[in-house]
Amino acid sequence: MINIPIALDAMGGDFAPESIIQGADFALSSLMYSYNYKVHFSIYGQEDKVMPILSKYKKLEESSTFIHVEDVVLASDKPSFAIRHRKQSSMTCAIEDVKKGIVSGAISSGNTGALMAISRFILGTLPNIDRPAIATTMPSMGKDFVLLDLGANVECNADSLFQFAIMGNAFAKTVLNRKNPKVALLNVGHEETKGTDTIREAFSLLKKIESGINFCGYVEANDILKGDVDVVVVDGFSGNVMLKMMESLAENIFALLKESINYSLATKFAGLLLKFQLKEKFYRFNPKFHNGAMLLGLNGVIVKSHGNADSIAFANAIKVAANAIYNNINVKIAGELNVIE
Amino acid sequence: MINIPIALDAMGGDFAPESIIQGADFALSSLMYSYNYKVHFSIYGQEDKVMPILSKYKKLEESSTFIHVEDVVLASDKPSFAIRHRKQSSMTCAIEDVKKGIVSGAISSGNTGALMAISRFILGTLPNIDRPAIATTMPSMGKDFVLLDLGANVECNADSLFQFAIMGNAFAKTVLNRKNPKVALLNVGHEETKGTDTIREAFSLLKKIESGINFCGYVEANDILKGDVDVVVVDGFSGNVMLKMMESLAENIFALLKESINYSLATKFAGLLLKFQLKEKFYRFNPKFHNGAMLLGLNGVIVKSHGNADSIAFANAIKVAANAIYNNINVKIAGELNVIE
Repeated sequence: MINIPIALDAMGGDFAPESIIQGADFALSSLMYSYNYKVHFSIYGQEDKVMPILSKYKKLEESSTFIHVEDVVLASDKPSFAIRHRKQSSMTCAIEDVKKGIVSGAISSGNTGALMAISRFILGTLPNIDRPAIATTMPSMGKDFVLLDLGANVECNADSLFQFAIMGNAFAKTVLNRKNPKVALLNVGHEETKGTDTIREAFSLLKKIESGINFCGYVEANDILKGDVDVVVVDGFSGNVMLKMMESLAENIFALLKESINYSLATKFAGLLLKFQLKEKFYRFNPKFHNGAMLLGLNGVIVKSHGNADSIAFANAIKVAANAIYNNINVKIAGELNVIE
Repeated sequence: MINIPIALDAMGGDFAPESIIQGADFALSSLMYSYNYKVHFSIYGQEDKVMPILSKYKKLEESSTFIHVEDVVLASDKPSFAIRHRKQSSMTCAIEDVKKGIVSGAISSGNTGALMAISRFILGTLPNIDRPAIATTMPSMGKDFVLLDLGANVECNADSLFQFAIMGNAFAKTVLNRKNPKVALLNVGHEETKGTDTIREAFSLLKKIESGINFCGYVEANDILKGDVDVVVVDGFSGNVMLKMMESLAENIFALLKESINYSLATKFAGLLLKFQLKEKFYRFNPKFHNGAMLLGLNGVIVKSHGNADSIAFANAIKVAANAIYNNINVKIAGELNVIE
């Protein structure tokens, strides 16, 4: 059985290092139990903070490698500052070991801007990729879909959108195991005349591809959740806005639903009667099961876990990284770009 | 008591002319009962389609003016086609009468692109406004907020965003009756360095204004629903994407909730127990009560009602138009731009 070595930044995120250690343990013990591969973790962190927790998880402690680091990237660090002054941080050391080939990928719940900047600085981009993008899976009424870019590129030209489509296609194939994913450009209408010049130009570029990608034209935001499309390509500004609004609207509606149920004894009883149905219907909307955004287009697998990820959410990010590595996502991206160029 | 004459396009939208006539009747009889003004409707439509319905609403029929027209703007009409070839349509005739001053504003549930194009062609824009924007009110966890642009301008420069802020401010003051509305630019972060050059430039322009507007900087999409901000300014592409995603996500979540409740006798009983709480909590999220987007920046009050608006929703659009007219929204916009220039 193949063994995949993955680096974990134990110091990033709101609940570090607990959530990272617990998440790694959970991933080892149950989440990836039935997979075709094993994972081996290299855990990067400050000894006095990580070891007291790691020592509680004997199986994880024995099967993983702990690497002590002196420094930590802070949430407030500017990317340029982090590149220059956080060379001994858990984040930077983890990425360095991806570069060296000691591990096959790295996961961090830390500062997104710094993670992107350091990764790009150390690993570089794949051939024919100008700008990396951030991609994640999202739930819909049907199957999950891939959304990118989520904010790495607030301004995009047509070439960038084109490359995002290629990368999103590879992400859907490897991480979501889709055979012939439907790839669409997000636009304000279905007609070819709609949108900006940039989007129309990206549309023409994608239309020209003859094989390897199942490009299905434009999708409107109100049609995404029908679940017909596997990959939604958008500039990082609109993608970021849409993602944040989706998360916050769902959160607020569920909070109001909870308030309604907690109102009185009668409504609490109603909540009990509805519990199983609500769980079944809304299970797949839980953001925990969609945690793990990939920094696509880098010369290495780097996964960003949400800053507020708990252990279950972090374990999901591990799954994203492991699937991407096991299925050779970057070879697929490079191969498809090669065919096209 | 002041009497406000408003033109209604009886032929636009999925449920025309029923929803328009019923909506007008509802607005007359109950919705605006307590207002400081009266409205008088001029109803534009094809006699054979409108009169059989209008004749059922005696009070409305007696108090309003019916204007027969030969033609209708279709949902499939391109804006340029509608300008050239739909001169005898209900939409065009209604807007013409705004221009002539016969009515103070017009409302249509028809083709948005055509409505914007014809309005702009006939009415022109206000002094110092380059491009009109579409604005609507949206619910949040706190108070409602104004969102613009919703898609009239898929690409915006800093001047446009600046003008949207001024117009949104006037909309919040007149339609939502806010005293000193907090106006924010939508961005991917709070820091001054975030976002595109265009957004940062608009930020500087707005920072310079010394009075008349309460500009509070950037807002992120996940903070909008907290309800701290009264006006959210964004380019028409991202605004359109965000609006459509909000509407569709809320719709889908409520559909799943309904499915859960309809699952069995026990869950239906639970639904009954929860009914009042759910109604109270989710009341303000009903899109009907937010129907009526204003085409801001035109030399006249034009309100777009949703294509699928029913009578209650259409009555809400009438309220938006009447409030905007009664409170002289365009005088306020022109005045504020004058002070600034």
